[in-house]
Amino acid sequence: MKDHSDALSDLRDLLGNGHVLTGDAVAHLATDWTGKWHADPLAVVRPSDTAQVAEVVKLAARHGLAVVPVGGNTGLVGGTANTGALMVSLERMAAIREIRPEAGIAIVEAGVVLSHLHAAAEDHDLIFPLTFGARGSARVGGFLSTNAGGSNVVRYGPTRGLVLGLEVVLADGRVLDLMSELRKDNSGYDLRDLFIGAEGTLGIVTAAVLRLASRPRHHAAAFVAVRDLPAALTLLRRLQAATDGAVEAFEYMPRTYMTELVRHRPDLRQPFAPRDHHVMVDLGGLSRPLGDVLEDTLAEAVESGEVLDAMVAQNEAQRRLIWEMREAAAEITFTRLPIVDNDVALPLDRVETFIDDMHARLAKMDPAAETLIVAHLGDGNVHLTVYPTDDGDLDGIRSMVEDVTVSLGGSISAEHGIGLSKLSTMSRRKDPVALDVMRAIKRALDPDGRMNPGKVVPDA
Amino acid sequence: MKDHSDALSDLRDLLGNGHVLTGDAVAHLATDWTGKWHADPLAVVRPSDTAQVAEVVKLAARHGLAVVPVGGNTGLVGGTANTGALMVSLERMAAIREIRPEAGIAIVEAGVVLSHLHAAAEDHDLIFPLTFGARGSARVGGFLSTNAGGSNVVRYGPTRGLVLGLEVVLADGRVLDLMSELRKDNSGYDLRDLFIGAEGTLGIVTAAVLRLASRPRHHAAAFVAVRDLPAALTLLRRLQAATDGAVEAFEYMPRTYMTELVRHRPDLRQPFAPRDHHVMVDLGGLSRPLGDVLEDTLAEAVESGEVLDAMVAQNEAQRRLIWEMREAAAEITFTRLPIVDNDVALPLDRVETFIDDMHARLAKMDPAAETLIVAHLGDGNVHLTVYPTDDGDLDGIRSMVEDVTVSLGGSISAEHGIGLSKLSTMSRRKDPVALDVMRAIKRALDPDGRMNPGKVVPDA
Repeated sequence: MKDHSDALSDLRDLLGNGHVLTGDAVAHLATDWTGKWHADPLAVVRPSDTAQVAEVVKLAARHGLAVVPVGGNTGLVGGTANTGALMVSLERMAAIREIRPEAGIAIVEAGVVLSHLHAAAEDHDLIFPLTFGARGSARVGGFLSTNAGGSNVVRYGPTRGLVLGLEVVLADGRVLDLMSELRKDNSGYDLRDLFIGAEGTLGIVTAAVLRLASRPRHHAAAFVAVRDLPAALTLLRRLQAATDGAVEAFEYMPRTYMTELVRHRPDLRQPFAPRDHHVMVDLGGLSRPLGDVLEDTLAEAVESGEVLDAMVAQNEAQRRLIWEMREAAAEITFTRLPIVDNDVALPLDRVETFIDDMHARLAKMDPAAETLIVAHLGDGNVHLTVYPTDDGDLDGIRSMVEDVTVSLGGSISAEHGIGLSKLSTMSRRKDPVALDVMRAIKRALDPDGRMNPGKVVPDA
Repeated sequence: MKDHSDALSDLRDLLGNGHVLTGDAVAHLATDWTGKWHADPLAVVRPSDTAQVAEVVKLAARHGLAVVPVGGNTGLVGGTANTGALMVSLERMAAIREIRPEAGIAIVEAGVVLSHLHAAAEDHDLIFPLTFGARGSARVGGFLSTNAGGSNVVRYGPTRGLVLGLEVVLADGRVLDLMSELRKDNSGYDLRDLFIGAEGTLGIVTAAVLRLASRPRHHAAAFVAVRDLPAALTLLRRLQAATDGAVEAFEYMPRTYMTELVRHRPDLRQPFAPRDHHVMVDLGGLSRPLGDVLEDTLAEAVESGEVLDAMVAQNEAQRRLIWEMREAAAEITFTRLPIVDNDVALPLDRVETFIDDMHARLAKMDPAAETLIVAHLGDGNVHLTVYPTDDGDLDGIRSMVEDVTVSLGGSISAEHGIGLSKLSTMSRRKDPVALDVMRAIKRALDPDGRMNPGKVVPDA
């Protein structure tokens, strides 16, 4: 390995000794929590502000080092994996600079932890809607760079819909100021959405202006057994129409998921014996309690045969239980190997066909393989994990899932991003012209290929 | 002028004689309806499908011609102005290919007229929410390329929030297939939002997948005199909270606007003698009539002094009248010269300061100048027209409005775009690093600068 003692020395001069970490001090980043991806960086640096991030990037350019930003490191696709890169941790840039309730915005640094932002917004009787299991660790820069989704997207959209402004340090160390606080801004190309979801390959997000929403006053949640997937979608439409679009979460869990849940989380007492198909529903009302509307709508759906059984939460503890049943997904998914994990999106009306086709083809390829499915059904986003048998063909199964997805007009990545794990899938499945355009943009903004190299956009 | 008879001959071979228009046949495009911008194209061609658009672009490259796409030509910023370019009209590509109610999408060609799309969606009991005065002429490719706004943005977002997929013919004639039907799609850089709002400078939009929304069953509209702008914003928050966010339009009209309205549209009988500040409100309810909620909320606001007078529409005819009072803005704005027209966006909590500061400064520069203001207040989007006196300093006034806008964190273009009219403003007011990044992207995707040259991104 090349001797980078000059670079480390320059970095220590710039940031101070305590903020240039090597060896044991970076061991916690060696393996991510999926267990599949590894980082062996030259060093992890912890700049204190945007100017220091810019200096670090310039210094990396002088020393020919790759630059990999890292937030809470809760990603699932190997987005921070590297060997010998300079990792830039945003953890010290964790200030919530301002919350302006009248304008409905929060101005934050990239190192702010999602759950801290939740708490700060609630102090102003507002919410930052984005939420997912890793909210206690994930940071702004990370969830922006992956355009993270989660369980509230059906109502509030993914990250991209919640960002008004951005600040980004570019590959040449210049600072791009897009810190708009505006709902409408047509002043040139939409650079903001280009950097959101770019996983640090075009620059490092250092700050953002985020949209806050009114805090729902009234929640009503239920765990529901449905006849099948079309019945679930009919129920979703009934609920949206009955509540003027107050559905905050609509999550699908089939029998196989409930079986795994019993095994891993026996503490979560399931409300009734599992059926083949279930959804959890959470409604958020600003102006009125929605419990009665939920009960009435479920009763109509029982009447018409869509709903087979239902438990409506009678209190906040029961509502939390329903959420925990869903949020346990992250911890019960990565418990076995080998594994083929997929994060696909389908048009809403094609989710059932996807699941049926995929199972039919899997049964021919590896009859004893098992699957675990959980879905943000309101978004057509299916998290499908296949556990092949020991002699299962992992690549063949992955390719088969891609085939079925693409044949139905779906996407091979819905919300987790590309990182390293979906790179070959991108090569095979994304429109070749789109890949070429991405490469042209990458070359234009990072001509030396120094920003998180090898991620997102596969080589030609 | 160079002899382009070869190019015209090749185009006629490709498209047929009747679809290569010159001379009198393109006279209707010579002046746009603002009267400020002119087009003197070599020819206007009317391809029938995406493959023909691609061939036209390749042919233009061979003959060294600039390419300017045109839809309904209802833009306000000179986005289609040109001399000697090949204009590509999408008018023959006007098929609504598919509406899938279960998926909530419409798949359309770029030449579809907005009002036709409205009607087609309503046939399926759905709406395409985007709407504005020019809906009877504006076409999909145009409103996508300008990221058009309008009066429903407060509820449904601007165009960008309503587009799932795109098809684009690039500068080299390749077809970029981004026709995703998905709510979530994290497969690489967000190219879609880069082409939306690019005004044809990066390629020609030929088709799109658009989101449809549930059709509100119940409307409730009112014309309201408010104490001042902060009172209007308080009323907006009251209405959002009382209706779970069912506010479809919240439009501001001050006394000066009502005075002009009397002059130009005496047929529109105003419900009460004008005050200093008014808003029009329209609510759209899916699950319940909202008339009582509107009346109750207005009564509360009268009680607390925010609302001075109000007329709640008692029937659809009265609701239409309220809308016409607002939508007359387009026809009463461009009636006098000289004119300095602005389309600015401000953070919601800074609109009043903007209007006050701007008037104070204008009074010093040109005491007899008049102003006309109408605003999408829910979005912080102010359409401010200044009518200077004959010896007024137009450039000085424009620059002053920019100063006040930028000093308050606003944008110099909210929804109309840049075209030619805001190009010098872009040079002066946009972050120089952002302009450089835009230039790099333009060079990367259109190295010969052939696509709608000279628009959106000012030269360095």
